[in-house]
Amino acid sequence: MIKKIEHLGIAVVDLKQATRLFEVLLNRKAYKEETVPSEGVTTVFFELGESKVELLGATHEESAIYKYLQKRGQGIHHVAVEVDDIRAEMERLRAAGFELINEEPKEGADNKLICFVHPRSTGGVLLELCQEKI
Amino acid sequence: MIKKIEHLGIAVVDLKQATRLFEVLLNRKAYKEETVPSEGVTTVFFELGESKVELLGATHEESAIYKYLQKRGQGIHHVAVEVDDIRAEMERLRAAGFELINEEPKEGADNKLICFVHPRSTGGVLLELCQEKI
Repeated sequence: MIKKIEHLGIAVVDLKQATRLFEVLLNRKAYKEETVPSEGVTTVFFELGESKVELLGATHEESAIYKYLQKRGQGIHHVAVEVDDIRAEMERLRAAGFELINEEPKEGADNKLICFVHPRSTGGVLLELCQEKI
Repeated sequence: MIKKIEHLGIAVVDLKQATRLFEVLLNRKAYKEETVPSEGVTTVFFELGESKVELLGATHEESAIYKYLQKRGQGIHHVAVEVDDIRAEMERLRAAGFELINEEPKEGADNKLICFVHPRSTGGVLLELCQEKI
């Protein structure tokens, strides 16, 4: 079951500058920064109701975020939804014809198991499923 | 004060087809459809926790959504945040150097007063402020 928007991922060129900008825009402090080496990304988190805003900066030029920025520029990169059972949701979506980018759940930021659904199967929306690790 | 993500706006080419796709993707029924003639847009709503997903279809070729689709294709178009006092937030953001697209709150879908903040002042994110009309 999909429970809520867990976070909104925003791709930014300069993470420190964007963090200052979003602290003013959202009128609150970022509460955490975390690097995910396997994704080539450093993330900065803001609380926003039951959801989060996650700024995404590339740590190197092979990072998917670096490539996204080259192609599309800064902006909303993906939406993540919290699910109670990621394998069940992956199976449900696969059976319905959606294209999963990773076939098995993988480790994401913030102690989560995650799976991305390809935007070419979702009307242009990069959707992330995530489930809190126990 | 910014309270939560009110909705995520997704621009789509074919609203009926996208509605069916998102009903499967999110595993729930859309609960409302509403046309906003002044914006040249028809919106379809899904509940998602305390937030909504709003599909946006253009009603004519002068619609901002039509132009967006021509330029960027389908995908996440904007994020809307609920505020308790839209005029106070507009004043705060204007004073901090953010660029408001409308200088006065205007009528949006779903019984809201809204104001858009230009993506060139927010690191590429089209941000909508919205406040429930009393």
